[in-house]
Amino acid sequence: MAAVHNYHNIGFCIAFICAIYPLHAKYSPTWKSIDSRPLPSWYDEAKLGIFVHWGVFSVPSYSSEWFWQNWIQQRLPGLEAFMQENYKPDFTYQDFAKDFSAEFFNADQWANIFNSSGARYIVFTSKHHEGYSNYASKYSFGWNSVDVGPSRDIIGELVASVRANTQMHFGLYHSQYEWFNPLFLQDKANNLSTDNFVQFKTLPEWYEIVNQYKPDILWSDGDWEGTDEYWKAKEFIAWLYNDSPVKDTVVINDRWGYGIGCVHGGFYTCGDRYNPGHLIEHKWENAMTIDKYSWGYRRNARLSDYLTMDQLIATFVKTVSCGGNMLLNVGPRHDGIIDQLMQDRLAQMGDWLAVNGEAIFQTRPWTYQNDSVNGDVWYTNRTTTESTTVYAITLSWPRNNSVYLGSPFPSKQTTVVSLLGYEHKLNWEPAGDNGMIISLPQLSQSEYPCQWAWTLKLEGLIQKQRTWPMKMPKFNINKPAHPYYWPTVIYT
Amino acid sequence: MAAVHNYHNIGFCIAFICAIYPLHAKYSPTWKSIDSRPLPSWYDEAKLGIFVHWGVFSVPSYSSEWFWQNWIQQRLPGLEAFMQENYKPDFTYQDFAKDFSAEFFNADQWANIFNSSGARYIVFTSKHHEGYSNYASKYSFGWNSVDVGPSRDIIGELVASVRANTQMHFGLYHSQYEWFNPLFLQDKANNLSTDNFVQFKTLPEWYEIVNQYKPDILWSDGDWEGTDEYWKAKEFIAWLYNDSPVKDTVVINDRWGYGIGCVHGGFYTCGDRYNPGHLIEHKWENAMTIDKYSWGYRRNARLSDYLTMDQLIATFVKTVSCGGNMLLNVGPRHDGIIDQLMQDRLAQMGDWLAVNGEAIFQTRPWTYQNDSVNGDVWYTNRTTTESTTVYAITLSWPRNNSVYLGSPFPSKQTTVVSLLGYEHKLNWEPAGDNGMIISLPQLSQSEYPCQWAWTLKLEGLIQKQRTWPMKMPKFNINKPAHPYYWPTVIYT
Amino acid sequence: MAAVHNYHNIGFCIAFICAIYPLHAKYSPTWKSIDSRPLPSWYDEAKLGIFVHWGVFSVPSYSSEWFWQNWIQQRLPGLEAFMQENYKPDFTYQDFAKDFSAEFFNADQWANIFNSSGARYIVFTSKHHEGYSNYASKYSFGWNSVDVGPSRDIIGELVASVRANTQMHFGLYHSQYEWFNPLFLQDKANNLSTDNFVQFKTLPEWYEIVNQYKPDILWSDGDWEGTDEYWKAKEFIAWLYNDSPVKDTVVINDRWGYGIGCVHGGFYTCGDRYNPGHLIEHKWENAMTIDKYSWGYRRNARLSDYLTMDQLIATFVKTVSCGGNMLLNVGPRHDGIIDQLMQDRLAQMGDWLAVNGEAIFQTRPWTYQNDSVNGDVWYTNRTTTESTTVYAITLSWPRNNSVYLGSPFPSKQTTVVSLLGYEHKLNWEPAGDNGMIISLPQLSQSEYPCQWAWTLKLEGLIQKQRTWPMKMPKFNINKPAHPYYWPTVIYT
Amino acid sequence: MAAVHNYHNIGFCIAFICAIYPLHAKYSPTWKSIDSRPLPSWYDEAKLGIFVHWGVFSVPSYSSEWFWQNWIQQRLPGLEAFMQENYKPDFTYQDFAKDFSAEFFNADQWANIFNSSGARYIVFTSKHHEGYSNYASKYSFGWNSVDVGPSRDIIGELVASVRANTQMHFGLYHSQYEWFNPLFLQDKANNLSTDNFVQFKTLPEWYEIVNQYKPDILWSDGDWEGTDEYWKAKEFIAWLYNDSPVKDTVVINDRWGYGIGCVHGGFYTCGDRYNPGHLIEHKWENAMTIDKYSWGYRRNARLSDYLTMDQLIATFVKTVSCGGNMLLNVGPRHDGIIDQLMQDRLAQMGDWLAVNGEAIFQTRPWTYQNDSVNGDVWYTNRTTTESTTVYAITLSWPRNNSVYLGSPFPSKQTTVVSLLGYEHKLNWEPAGDNGMIISLPQLSQSEYPCQWAWTLKLEGLIQKQRTWPMKMPKFNINKPAHPYYWPTVIYT
Repeated sequence: MAAVHNYHNIGFCIAFICAIYPLHAKYSPTWKSIDSRPLPSWYDEAKLGIFVHWGVFSVPSYSSEWFWQNWIQQRLPGLEAFMQENYKPDFTYQDFAKDFSAEFFNADQWANIFNSSGARYIVFTSKHHEGYSNYASKYSFGWNSVDVGPSRDIIGELVASVRANTQMHFGLYHSQYEWFNPLFLQDKANNLSTDNFVQFKTLPEWYEIVNQYKPDILWSDGDWEGTDEYWKAKEFIAWLYNDSPVKDTVVINDRWGYGIGCVHGGFYTCGDRYNPGHLIEHKWENAMTIDKYSWGYRRNARLSDYLTMDQLIATFVKTVSCGGNMLLNVGPRHDGIIDQLMQDRLAQMGDWLAVNGEAIFQTRPWTYQNDSVNGDVWYTNRTTTESTTVYAITLSWPRNNSVYLGSPFPSKQTTVVSLLGYEHKLNWEPAGDNGMIISLPQLSQSEYPCQWAWTLKLEGLIQKQRTWPMKMPKFNINKPAHPYYWPTVIYT
Repeated sequence: MAAVHNYHNIGFCIAFICAIYPLHAKYSPTWKSIDSRPLPSWYDEAKLGIFVHWGVFSVPSYSSEWFWQNWIQQRLPGLEAFMQENYKPDFTYQDFAKDFSAEFFNADQWANIFNSSGARYIVFTSKHHEGYSNYASKYSFGWNSVDVGPSRDIIGELVASVRANTQMHFGLYHSQYEWFNPLFLQDKANNLSTDNFVQFKTLPEWYEIVNQYKPDILWSDGDWEGTDEYWKAKEFIAWLYNDSPVKDTVVINDRWGYGIGCVHGGFYTCGDRYNPGHLIEHKWENAMTIDKYSWGYRRNARLSDYLTMDQLIATFVKTVSCGGNMLLNVGPRHDGIIDQLMQDRLAQMGDWLAVNGEAIFQTRPWTYQNDSVNGDVWYTNRTTTESTTVYAITLSWPRNNSVYLGSPFPSKQTTVVSLLGYEHKLNWEPAGDNGMIISLPQLSQSEYPCQWAWTLKLEGLIQKQRTWPMKMPKFNINKPAHPYYWPTVIYT
Repeated sequence: MAAVHNYHNIGFCIAFICAIYPLHAKYSPTWKSIDSRPLPSWYDEAKLGIFVHWGVFSVPSYSSEWFWQNWIQQRLPGLEAFMQENYKPDFTYQDFAKDFSAEFFNADQWANIFNSSGARYIVFTSKHHEGYSNYASKYSFGWNSVDVGPSRDIIGELVASVRANTQMHFGLYHSQYEWFNPLFLQDKANNLSTDNFVQFKTLPEWYEIVNQYKPDILWSDGDWEGTDEYWKAKEFIAWLYNDSPVKDTVVINDRWGYGIGCVHGGFYTCGDRYNPGHLIEHKWENAMTIDKYSWGYRRNARLSDYLTMDQLIATFVKTVSCGGNMLLNVGPRHDGIIDQLMQDRLAQMGDWLAVNGEAIFQTRPWTYQNDSVNGDVWYTNRTTTESTTVYAITLSWPRNNSVYLGSPFPSKQTTVVSLLGYEHKLNWEPAGDNGMIISLPQLSQSEYPCQWAWTLKLEGLIQKQRTWPMKMPKFNINKPAHPYYWPTVIYT
Repeated sequence: MAAVHNYHNIGFCIAFICAIYPLHAKYSPTWKSIDSRPLPSWYDEAKLGIFVHWGVFSVPSYSSEWFWQNWIQQRLPGLEAFMQENYKPDFTYQDFAKDFSAEFFNADQWANIFNSSGARYIVFTSKHHEGYSNYASKYSFGWNSVDVGPSRDIIGELVASVRANTQMHFGLYHSQYEWFNPLFLQDKANNLSTDNFVQFKTLPEWYEIVNQYKPDILWSDGDWEGTDEYWKAKEFIAWLYNDSPVKDTVVINDRWGYGIGCVHGGFYTCGDRYNPGHLIEHKWENAMTIDKYSWGYRRNARLSDYLTMDQLIATFVKTVSCGGNMLLNVGPRHDGIIDQLMQDRLAQMGDWLAVNGEAIFQTRPWTYQNDSVNGDVWYTNRTTTESTTVYAITLSWPRNNSVYLGSPFPSKQTTVVSLLGYEHKLNWEPAGDNGMIISLPQLSQSEYPCQWAWTLKLEGLIQKQRTWPMKMPKFNINKPAHPYYWPTVIYT
């Protein structure tokens, strides 16, 4: 029995403890039970999060955060050439860590920059597939940000500042899998009939980051290399939901084992940059990147590799309209600077949300997502006990200042149309069986309320339409074979 | 006599040679003679150049390219703290050179990026005040880009690519003064009664870069520490104009000695970011920076430290209108990457010029620079033997789509008004004694020909107005005591 | 049960397995049983071993191999100053690892150098208290010689070369304790009521190095921080003696837990540089260093800090005479070079043994260790079924060429005396009740058979003396409170 | 005329100044005049000097101090491989300078170590062929020990300590030639018809080091690439002898131009490790190394590459006997540590001189150098007005304690023989026509006065023999084609 208590002291979940969950706990380690927990409402209301990928990969900051794997395992020629041309022979990936300098890392500046985007949460990499942890993990001696490189508790500084200076929720990304951890490689060589890696590395770190930083989100990744059984995911989540210090507020994603993504867990992330384009019955998240080709900073990204504001806003509007949140990724440089162009994108997101936030935050999908006629228009909805308001967001300003909407059912008596950021009501008239034509104001260039997409607020529509969530055919997504991959870009 | 020939072999200009100039040469080493040379026309027509500051200062890339001086001589507390926190004691500035890695420096990429801005020339730092030369200077053994750091002839690669891939002219910035060169310090300690620094360093390098790279512009700097006599400037320029391989095409600036700036030489630069706001009789250049606070790359620049496109276009229009060229500076990173936000600014300059270039390139100042009534409007002029066209560039789009111009004298019969980038003629009517009101089209957001400033093309105005150059009171500028300084920004 | 088998797969010793040892095994996990195993004879016969301390401490190579602890924990002012003066702030100990370059490490050269000393075994640091392993430990990801620094399996290369090129036995030093391993610190904070560090780090590595490198010696250290219970030492040794691939040949030392040293295990090492000066009943080893003040290389050692050959030979002779082996330590440099002065000492040891090896290897202590009259003389003994030979080694050559020995009991009829390395028999005569005076030859400087200590070989002594091992009072040593410490030397 | 004065201000010697020497000066710039200056007596009396090679070559500390040339120019395969295996591509030699750390350089320790050898002077590299100066040369901006690397005035610290703590004279080695200085390469490309390198680099630095450090020796090197005319050597030496601050005490060597070595100047060095084995009429110096293969530190030197004490003493005795001084070279490590084995050699030289210094310092060659019969014996002589003493140094101790000397002419009445370090007079008897047999005492090993060579002091010999200097045939040495080369050793 002593051993059991020892485990408990350092936060290990073992069979005995899990076995007694049903006696006192709300959730048992089964997907049925886990999936029965309602999603804490803050998450759905938040809509926009900032994803931050930072680690030793930020030192070469070349190709992508998969640098190590792509170099050593995939042996991509571009990466081999990069190493040969710029480093001495036998330079190892782990030799990079010393130069993860972070001298300009200032948690308050980061918090302000992220906050300036209007985002309501951030998700920060506690540890990526490389295994390097951005805090003093007890299970990663010599391979973490306190022992080598910055000599700082990165997570600790960031979480403190975010909580002190902003209203944003703080989440942690954590990769279960580590490409080159010899304990994992051993388990894998044993066809995962052993699980030493999980017991001595993954699980202890899960408990450690939860107890230490009390994150509002656990964003699991690197799950596909093993089943949820191997990872002991259900047992961990049951503890998280029953007994952890964040049991009431925490939100998790769905990457908890091979075949689990898009099927179980908290919000669904499915594949990277998941954006289905239609309503998904289950809460989901579109995790995507400003740099189209990488999550980690890429020094030599071309200007054209960064998503434009047009693309970002369009992606965001579509995502929210279909029930998703958008998790917008930035990769800081090794010295702690967030690329100024990325800062610019974030600030412009904030500018846009300052005008259009009403159509985004705390809204829900409407009966229609994309207008049935006008492909440039996406809807959101805000319903209170007294009224319902529909927001039609048009990604382009019509050349003749006249918008045709095919989906709303207006009423001459009650329907009132306005443009967010513009003080006057707009004229409109019914069109066809079930539609309306709205006259936009003639504005000179500086009078536009914002630059990239405009929100028409429709009040007093006729309330005979479906509301969400609806009965829908069983949610079923064709999962790609390698769900989270993205082509690696190396310029020559 | 042998000594004289020796000097000549390595390109030294000495008294004897200069003394015989009058016998065969067009220009003698006097300002009167030098100033009599007409400015090669390509320069005035070019209007936009890109300035590039790259050197060892790009390694710390902190505070500014004056890092060394501000740290060691000015002892700015922020810089001392930066060094103490991030480097071992006794780390010297010259120790930085080894890490000037330039691994991503690709001259073709740079040429394309600069060219994308629409600029017609570039000016590249052959050597800044630190003394480190971006080529294998014979007079800077061990302190140049071939000996330490990149191990490459940076200038050579860049000049070759610019000439092969673009139409841009190639110029070289060269600092005469070096903060810490002991030969200079010795001359200075001698109250400049000696000139060993000039004879053994500055002059040989002037000859070397002219003979080796045949630059179209010599952009002298660091002149203020000595007189033109000390620098032997007139003798050098006489050689440049009479006998050098670029004698027919080269353009020089005015920083050739204390008291010479704004008074003698080629185009006038006067102080940094010189932008007088009124017509200057003599050709001048506004050398300025995207990063408001630094010419060299500054890693920790805030987003707000970068000029916006509005600011850039306004500065550019005003500069051209008043007879200047704008030399827009970017500071690449130590690894050869040009910051993506700077790339973005350059590309947007190019977008704007693609529409409005007609009102910029090869134009001349008009009778009026700033409209006499409408402060947002600046003029340029293009006159041929047959006709004269005036371009009124409005920095803002009027809220009511109606522009009042107070300076043009229109004729109902002949005057035709159009908007660059818009296919239809515009309506206008006379207003007051000498003015007109132009009706701009009502455009939806995507129909604007460009985003930041719009050009009204006025043809067939009544030709009774002054043309440029005019008789004007003697050009006289109050030179600031420390002409080129700019406040140093260090964030804490 | 599955879990048990998993442990087994990766070589873990757990309670269940240990419990069944008595059923099939020769040795059970009790000290009584373990201590009952006879010491493999090769070890006692070998007499001289080379100890090698190499690790990340070889990078600063300053003060001692305890650099990390003395700097961070003891906060020795000299070390703090060293770091402040030579490294940037926040430089961590683990940041040193990248510069553990080992570019000149050549296992064949090392094997030859060690072999040149005449030593019969080497003991190499698999892992010191810093935790960095000189092979790719699966339990030290990112903190070992394959992942960071040399990028090589140091142990693997060395063991292969030693076995291929020499007759030396190969042993491994292994520190159980790690100063800063967070798992250990956690156990310690729990008053060692938990043992996660042992289960997930120490024990797996013990199994790993035994299975992987099949060492002939396990030289445990860093034991004093826990009991043998905490370290699970007895269970591991039982496995080592019963089931390991080296069960028949392996020799272990005595540092297996607090209070165990000098009491249980294989040979006794007691404290560092243990050299009691009298016969010890149990086989023991004097582990000592050429550099008096450090096991790891110390760049700034003064010449006077190295033991002279006189001191080395005297220590060695005394050690062997009293039943010990000498383990002579060298600390290679970070680049793999063994200091030439240390090489010189080793080569001179070899020179001495080439002459005097007969009096050393495979000998046993004699009845007397130190002569009862002549304090400069120490004895060894070689006994066969036919005869017994006594070796009297005199550390100084007597000024009058005449040696008085008080302990041997000679016989005029049978006793023959010779000098090793000298071809003629020596004259002698009896002296007093029980002694003899031996006349040494008069040699000119170049005729001495060796330089530092000379062996008188005494054959045909009268055999009435005790032989070893004898009945002796219970071996009992006053253990010092901090057994292995040595004053830290920092020059200012 | 102004130019002349400028030169003068910074210490340049030019034609005008030299031309007026005859008016007031003792020595004119001709070899005849220069060679007429008597050698200051301190130099001949000193006999032993320590040569110190330290520079950027001490960073790779591989192959030899000719690393740069052998790698880049000779392209020795071993060096190319070394660079490829241990450094990133395009790593330049000058990139090494930053790591010339010198953190343990302590001038007082060096002074003590050198002094412990008994040497009476040291010669330190102010600048080797690489061009890097160990002080802040005004003519080597960015390529000296203050600007890059140590950030210290190495010469300044050393000269101050040597003068404060010892009686040793301080000299400076200075290479005129620099392998890769572009000014020199230009002169060379001009077939030395130009001399810009000499005027702007070599000469100013000669003046600078003389004025700044007032060295007692100028040890010129790198002369062979130009004539004494090219180097302006005679003019410089005339200034040195007439007007410099060290005009009365300074000693120079002979490497002042192609064909000058062994013919003109101060003491002759001829080739490296020059040791003719017979009397040389002109004062000469044997500059040689402890590491047989390199002047700069070589990390991977084998033990057998270091001269043994037997070899060192034999070389020294032979050198002094034939009229030379020995300049014993050590190459410190990049961190300022002098290899402990080299320290050991120096200390043992000091031990030997403590006993035998009487036979060395202030002595002169005797009539015979090597004994006419006994090849192991070399002579020196000390003559006063009252008496003459001859020292016969035997490199080996005779097996039968009896030495036969063939050259002295003893007198039964007056001749007294003793052994330095031994208190009693020795017996001797005449042998043959002109010789003597000396009986050495029978000493036990510890009674020898020293370890390596023993001095017989012969007083009262019959005074009919020649004394030195004698008339001798004109000194004429066959100079080797490449006088100072030595095979480069690279281990593979």
